[in-house]
Amino acid sequence: MEKSIQVLVALCAAAAAVGVVAIIFVLRWVLHYKEGLAWDGGLAEFNWHPVLIVIGFIILQGTAIIVYRLPWTWKCSKLIMKFIHAGLNLLAFTLVVISLVAVFDFHNAAKIPNMYSLHSWLGLIAVILYCLQLVLGVGMYLIPITPASWRAAFMPVHVYSGLLIFTSVIAVALMGITEKLIFGLSNPKYKDSPPEAIFVNVLGLLLVVFGALILWIATRTSWKRPSDQIPHILHTNGGGEDSSKVGPTMSQLSVGADAEPCWDVRRRSNKLDEQDN
Amino acid sequence: MEKSIQVLVALCAAAAAVGVVAIIFVLRWVLHYKEGLAWDGGLAEFNWHPVLIVIGFIILQGTAIIVYRLPWTWKCSKLIMKFIHAGLNLLAFTLVVISLVAVFDFHNAAKIPNMYSLHSWLGLIAVILYCLQLVLGVGMYLIPITPASWRAAFMPVHVYSGLLIFTSVIAVALMGITEKLIFGLSNPKYKDSPPEAIFVNVLGLLLVVFGALILWIATRTSWKRPSDQIPHILHTNGGGEDSSKVGPTMSQLSVGADAEPCWDVRRRSNKLDEQDN
Repeated sequence: MEKSIQVLVALCAAAAAVGVVAIIFVLRWVLHYKEGLAWDGGLAEFNWHPVLIVIGFIILQGTAIIVYRLPWTWKCSKLIMKFIHAGLNLLAFTLVVISLVAVFDFHNAAKIPNMYSLHSWLGLIAVILYCLQLVLGVGMYLIPITPASWRAAFMPVHVYSGLLIFTSVIAVALMGITEKLIFGLSNPKYKDSPPEAIFVNVLGLLLVVFGALILWIATRTSWKRPSDQIPHILHTNGGGEDSSKVGPTMSQLSVGADAEPCWDVRRRSNKLDEQDN
Repeated sequence: MEKSIQVLVALCAAAAAVGVVAIIFVLRWVLHYKEGLAWDGGLAEFNWHPVLIVIGFIILQGTAIIVYRLPWTWKCSKLIMKFIHAGLNLLAFTLVVISLVAVFDFHNAAKIPNMYSLHSWLGLIAVILYCLQLVLGVGMYLIPITPASWRAAFMPVHVYSGLLIFTSVIAVALMGITEKLIFGLSNPKYKDSPPEAIFVNVLGLLLVVFGALILWIATRTSWKRPSDQIPHILHTNGGGEDSSKVGPTMSQLSVGADAEPCWDVRRRSNKLDEQDN
């Protein structure tokens, strides 16, 4: 394996490890330090909010962002990868909506006002933009009739807004952690640094490290899916992250006219590898 | 003027406008809603912290990031632009250090613990990384003996860490705003949305919009300084953001052997423009 790809695999593994540890941290926070998880209108219902935001809006969204970068998927068809990318984001969005219901339910039951804090303002803006990103992403890159020129023109905006929303969500999560530690710790207070405060501060650091890894992996153009080595499957789904290359790859369309499952492409690619040896 | 450059100029103007409005907002916050500015160990000394962070760590750092993107500087020598980039960052760093002294002074006088919050942890990490970025940046790109190959190899890290630090600082500022609104508002509280709460939430939104504009401008490669149109001035300072192009431009070195002031280059370029007409 080429050295640059080894670095990519190591960074993906690091991101996965940090992501899993962050999920363990948020679960331990609500299960060990707080009231646990339930759907009762109380604090245990609120606790779904940080859990689902970390799992869905941060870890799943981050995974969706770099899914095209995973080298073992480079032999799968682009269309399948686009469905995985969209599916992960749709799953993330579903968890986010549930997490919002949890927090509104809790606020209403406890007579706490909604939408007063900068955390809530920016969080709601991020959710609305994420929804718009999903709708536009599906419309642009999964509906076959969208012209390739539109796909190519929109791709820089799709990539930029995806990374901006992801980054903003981490910032909003850090504000949420700050709020919860100030409101949730009373004796001892946040400023007296009880074990929970230190533990959740570390969770915040983990989220930042996860974000930094995803942003590095996603912005290295040399780690882009080398899709020109693999024929595009469907004329109208030839776009995606490499849509700037749509022109040249169109000439290869005769190689695979129908959608082809991942393993078929892999088998053919393996044969090609053998020929190379 | 080419249409793409018109868009660039419009976005730079928008970033400048949002930046100026953000500075007016933070000043109005501390002067109108809070205790004003002083150096007395009290709340008026603390107030230097948000003011200097917004002016220095966000607006000045953001300006330093996109200074190579300003089209009216493209006729200035790269070396002068590198000094302006470094100078703005050094000025920003100085303001950040003063803003930290203000907050530690205030905490110590008021017997509030230092460094307990996630805001303080991430903020201090950002300041340390910013200092490292400055030292490495000067060592790599302003000291003439650094080999061009090192400059080129380090450039992706320099750009990535610069943008990551800038983004993190905005996230940390949003956490700081959240803390200050919770601790600083008592009757009415933050959750009751007094005018100060709304006003400072809007300041937070302005900082995010400023950050989003800077990140868009800084990451469009088509808006890079077209330095191959202008001869590099000093052999050992030919690097910078376009250091990947060091090779080709080396052949042009005989055109200008000494550091040349901006206006001289501009005059020569104007002559070239006239020849074109």
